[in-house]
Amino acid sequence: MPDSSLTRADYAHFLPIQTRWNDMDKYGHVNNMIYYGYFDTVVTDYIVRIGELDTSESPAVALVVESHCNYERPISFPTIVDCGLRVGRLGNSSIRYEIGVFAHGEDTIAAHGHFVHVFVTREDRRPTPIPKAIRAAVMPLVCL
Amino acid sequence: MPDSSLTRADYAHFLPIQTRWNDMDKYGHVNNMIYYGYFDTVVTDYIVRIGELDTSESPAVALVVESHCNYERPISFPTIVDCGLRVGRLGNSSIRYEIGVFAHGEDTIAAHGHFVHVFVTREDRRPTPIPKAIRAAVMPLVCL
Amino acid sequence: MPDSSLTRADYAHFLPIQTRWNDMDKYGHVNNMIYYGYFDTVVTDYIVRIGELDTSESPAVALVVESHCNYERPISFPTIVDCGLRVGRLGNSSIRYEIGVFAHGEDTIAAHGHFVHVFVTREDRRPTPIPKAIRAAVMPLVCL
Amino acid sequence: MPDSSLTRADYAHFLPIQTRWNDMDKYGHVNNMIYYGYFDTVVTDYIVRIGELDTSESPAVALVVESHCNYERPISFPTIVDCGLRVGRLGNSSIRYEIGVFAHGEDTIAAHGHFVHVFVTREDRRPTPIPKAIRAAVMPLVCL
Repeated sequence: MPDSSLTRADYAHFLPIQTRWNDMDKYGHVNNMIYYGYFDTVVTDYIVRIGELDTSESPAVALVVESHCNYERPISFPTIVDCGLRVGRLGNSSIRYEIGVFAHGEDTIAAHGHFVHVFVTREDRRPTPIPKAIRAAVMPLVCL
Repeated sequence: MPDSSLTRADYAHFLPIQTRWNDMDKYGHVNNMIYYGYFDTVVTDYIVRIGELDTSESPAVALVVESHCNYERPISFPTIVDCGLRVGRLGNSSIRYEIGVFAHGEDTIAAHGHFVHVFVTREDRRPTPIPKAIRAAVMPLVCL
Repeated sequence: MPDSSLTRADYAHFLPIQTRWNDMDKYGHVNNMIYYGYFDTVVTDYIVRIGELDTSESPAVALVVESHCNYERPISFPTIVDCGLRVGRLGNSSIRYEIGVFAHGEDTIAAHGHFVHVFVTREDRRPTPIPKAIRAAVMPLVCL
Repeated sequence: MPDSSLTRADYAHFLPIQTRWNDMDKYGHVNNMIYYGYFDTVVTDYIVRIGELDTSESPAVALVVESHCNYERPISFPTIVDCGLRVGRLGNSSIRYEIGVFAHGEDTIAAHGHFVHVFVTREDRRPTPIPKAIRAAVMPLVCL
């Protein structure tokens, strides 16, 4: 899974995210947990804005059941990070998102990982098909 | 101190910051503590990039001794927030920064506050004059 | 407002909170914004457990309209912090909480501050009286 | 790797961590990224206190090169989480930590994952052997 040969060309959609002072831990680089905040942000921004997910009222909500990250190069504040997104697997009720993190202006990948969303009903949290608008939105992100 | 009549024109410098999914708490708005992360970010980005502060090696480091925020209107992910900055007081070894937070595209202020940096020596944490490059950098931000 | 003479005896209720590695920023002490997470946690834990607030379903929700902190001494991971709580003002629909943060085993205060909750209806976010069970729960915390 | 049959008996060391209000995202459960904060905390607390790591001055620092988590059951504030720790692989300069998260008072695992530390020199970030005191400290955590 570690694959440091990934480049910007491997991702279909990007969101720039301003790093924050407190993203860095005592060692002066962005802490490992913060990358998952970037992952969550590029994905949720996309499925809210393009996939029309209403996180307050939608009958389906997306739960993260698995996440993973490989860290290749440290990142430091105050850079902006460009978070690349693609979809590795599009199931009936689950989506595997793959994310690459690049420091602004750099082509060498800093970190890459994935997480899996399972869509469940808001009420009783049972698996439910991916909402149509979200399926349509992520379709162009599926990598071949 | 609460002053909801503050506008974008009251601030001299702006940094746009992408909100993150996890900035929101259970009530579906950006949590009160997160605003202080925005404050820290607009200030530290400025004194690192414009004031040439080397946070790894500088003989002086800046400690926060007081912070304050008034919340006027909730903000929700995935908006970008524009963080406005001005300097309310420029002392010998301390700076009072005043920050206004605006949702992107809106002129009504969402939150405003301040924090006070005291510059101390890295080694023994005793007050020391503001480094010259930082003083020069923040001078144009002093409000009249 | 800065008052470094505050002691543990000035607070009526305590919650111990384990600091986390990532609470510390690059300077190796707990970052200023994190203290507000401690504040929120001691208060919300109290009004959920003792005040029986159901944060999912209650007709009233509590919004933070103002917060403030003075930092007296740095704290470092992995200490536990003891967060002391008292109520400075108990209004009709608002509560001013005052919080003191002590490193475990130390009597000298590390930081102290306050925040103000305004209770509003969940639906249209208009001010509403403090729920009875919460009023009863915080009454013993009111300082004279 | 997903293995929901893991129990408390599978872990050799535990640290209780107080959840925080802001650990929860809009969906009212602890956000996926926060678990990595728990992971980092149980491990770093252990290698600082038992392994005598001086995070300010040690010639070796530990970098996270990979992390992973499987989420089995949601957790909500204000529970305390008991974080179980064991060592899955102890190399020359790297350690694979395996962590299980349990809500206080519950035996069913909520989440489990791992991360890998590589020890590098503080100066030039090249791999270096695990410091002796840390190796001795984690030896009893190695699972058979």
